[in-house]
Amino acid sequence: MQPRTVTSAAALLIGNELLSGKVHESNLIELARALRALGVRLERVVMIPDEIDVIAREARALSDAFDVVFTSGGVGPTHDDVTIDGLARAFDVRALIDPTMEALLRNAYGERCTDGHLRMALVPEGAELKTTPEVLWPTVVIKNIWVLPGVPEIFRMKLAVVRSWLRGPEPFISRAVFTKLDEADLKPLLDRIVTEHPDVEVGSYPKWFDPTYKTKLTFDSRSELKVRDAVDSFVALLPKGEPQRVE
Amino acid sequence: MQPRTVTSAAALLIGNELLSGKVHESNLIELARALRALGVRLERVVMIPDEIDVIAREARALSDAFDVVFTSGGVGPTHDDVTIDGLARAFDVRALIDPTMEALLRNAYGERCTDGHLRMALVPEGAELKTTPEVLWPTVVIKNIWVLPGVPEIFRMKLAVVRSWLRGPEPFISRAVFTKLDEADLKPLLDRIVTEHPDVEVGSYPKWFDPTYKTKLTFDSRSELKVRDAVDSFVALLPKGEPQRVE
Repeated sequence: MQPRTVTSAAALLIGNELLSGKVHESNLIELARALRALGVRLERVVMIPDEIDVIAREARALSDAFDVVFTSGGVGPTHDDVTIDGLARAFDVRALIDPTMEALLRNAYGERCTDGHLRMALVPEGAELKTTPEVLWPTVVIKNIWVLPGVPEIFRMKLAVVRSWLRGPEPFISRAVFTKLDEADLKPLLDRIVTEHPDVEVGSYPKWFDPTYKTKLTFDSRSELKVRDAVDSFVALLPKGEPQRVE
Repeated sequence: MQPRTVTSAAALLIGNELLSGKVHESNLIELARALRALGVRLERVVMIPDEIDVIAREARALSDAFDVVFTSGGVGPTHDDVTIDGLARAFDVRALIDPTMEALLRNAYGERCTDGHLRMALVPEGAELKTTPEVLWPTVVIKNIWVLPGVPEIFRMKLAVVRSWLRGPEPFISRAVFTKLDEADLKPLLDRIVTEHPDVEVGSYPKWFDPTYKTKLTFDSRSELKVRDAVDSFVALLPKGEPQRVE
């Protein structure tokens, strides 16, 4: 099957441990980079506690507003793993034991397989199971929501499945210019570039404690030509001795 | 003045560079830990792009739903720094140059002070400026929203101001029990503890690649006695040789 083309994405990060500061969230950056490389625009990230109603409400809102949504966390066997229940409630369907998942779990755990393990076979009614030749353990997709695990090592593994099944309309082209000029002094130049190159997204990022540069300017677009034009115009406006480097 | 007591908090992380994966967000964990230590519950985090309307809508919603809100990012002098404009729009007020901030900027930059620098003196009409004896540079607070910078070093410095002005109703008490048991096998024990100790928040976190334990159980409450009871009851249910450790 051909990968599906999506333009916009959102992420729903689920877990009390993230909000309480006990665990440093580390899946988002991996997802953000994977989507960027695919040419998909991540537009919103929401982090919420392990509460069925909150998950249901937020998942539904994100599902309606974006082409694709990724959840992270809350899919284990214990009482605080309520993502599947939340997604079922979001779409007003039941959470059911999926026979394929059940067979995989029984095979993996053998005689040790308990009701606890089988909770991991629960899927919202109507969900699809996505696999690739490399990642045979199924990934649950309900409507446009991909259900990914919170454990970082497994999350990263699942991104291979995302890459196989989704793609963006066109890749993003990004360039960066580094200067020792102050952001405030660059402002008139940047305002001019932003006005003259409306299709290029220009970002300005001060670095307070780096000896090699003071401000990083980024130029992003889906058109390589437009990015190049904007970078060239900007560099031509800089004083002698600048920029420090272009990447 | 006495610090204000707040129970619930939200964070609004603003910046295209976070969503595109160019920059690894690093302020949230600092904020989460600071709030936790104060006894304030962080209940929701939202990450959005540098867009005035999105900032306005989201800031307003979070301000209405939580006792206190913290923004991070979008407060520099350039075209993509629109947090102040977004907050002004959220409350339907103007963004004005604050005379105190203007004087500080003129003093800091001297003859080099440009209109670009003075953009950093903009505040939403009606904002307060918070300082402490140690952090004299003012922090802008509009209604219940604290406007914090995106630069991590400065963000962390500003948390000292937050600590001086806000506090929670009571501190959280947290304990953790580490075991080599599988989450699914722990499930019946945990379900019993959760039922018998309804005021204690119990979390279960599998660790896939650690030789010293397999599952970490956390017990949280504002009552030390209730946490101790729950931990003791749980430990008493564990088989011989467990737990690996209690922290």
